[in-house]
Amino acid sequence: MANPTDRFTTDRIDETHELIASDKVEGTAVYSPAQEKLGTINHFMVDKQTGHVAYAVMSFGGFLGMGNSYHPLPWKALTYNTNLQGYVVDLTPDQLKSAPSYTSESMPNWSDDLYTHQVDDYYEGRIGR
Amino acid sequence: MANPTDRFTTDRIDETHELIASDKVEGTAVYSPAQEKLGTINHFMVDKQTGHVAYAVMSFGGFLGMGNSYHPLPWKALTYNTNLQGYVVDLTPDQLKSAPSYTSESMPNWSDDLYTHQVDDYYEGRIGR
Repeated sequence: MANPTDRFTTDRIDETHELIASDKVEGTAVYSPAQEKLGTINHFMVDKQTGHVAYAVMSFGGFLGMGNSYHPLPWKALTYNTNLQGYVVDLTPDQLKSAPSYTSESMPNWSDDLYTHQVDDYYEGRIGR
Repeated sequence: MANPTDRFTTDRIDETHELIASDKVEGTAVYSPAQEKLGTINHFMVDKQTGHVAYAVMSFGGFLGMGNSYHPLPWKALTYNTNLQGYVVDLTPDQLKSAPSYTSESMPNWSDDLYTHQVDDYYEGRIGR
């Protein structure tokens, strides 16, 4: 669990309360509401035309025994917590286990609406703000 | 200049006509309308709350004698060109020389509205779609 005092340790100028560098988001921790660390943001999926971040893809360092797995999360499911210096998602580790995920050996087809709808449907109504 | 046939060489599944992985955007080439390569996208600045990409920060590999310099471009100034497999911005190399830029020794304060307004003002009316 992150130490709240960690929020004072960053010296990156390009991180503010409003804008954050994409290469800084990559690697940012994701926590449950109980502040259990769920994983880190590996990368995110951006709409080329609108420039909107559609999904943050969270990866695990073997946490929960899931090995090298990736969980796409709708961006709107993530709330940035300045104290934790990380994102909070309203999911328990158990709920996350049953959420859509993939491995580097079974990459999803992001151009397939069926896939993105599957992700959206899982989180629809479950989390949000 | 990119070879248009390059568009068939990618085998990344997570790049589609709609969504692109953030770590793939980083490193994507940026061209002038005359298809001169202006630089590559180093990273971009994301609004933490809305998940919207506000600026793409383009870097140079010494092109134009500018060394290690960074040019923030409003995302809406960039048009993705599938043939070039890169972004096109409506600027000549000369116009780019006079655009707002910084070096790693003079990082901007992104939390300062005066800075972002300076960038926005330069591109306001000059480019867009």
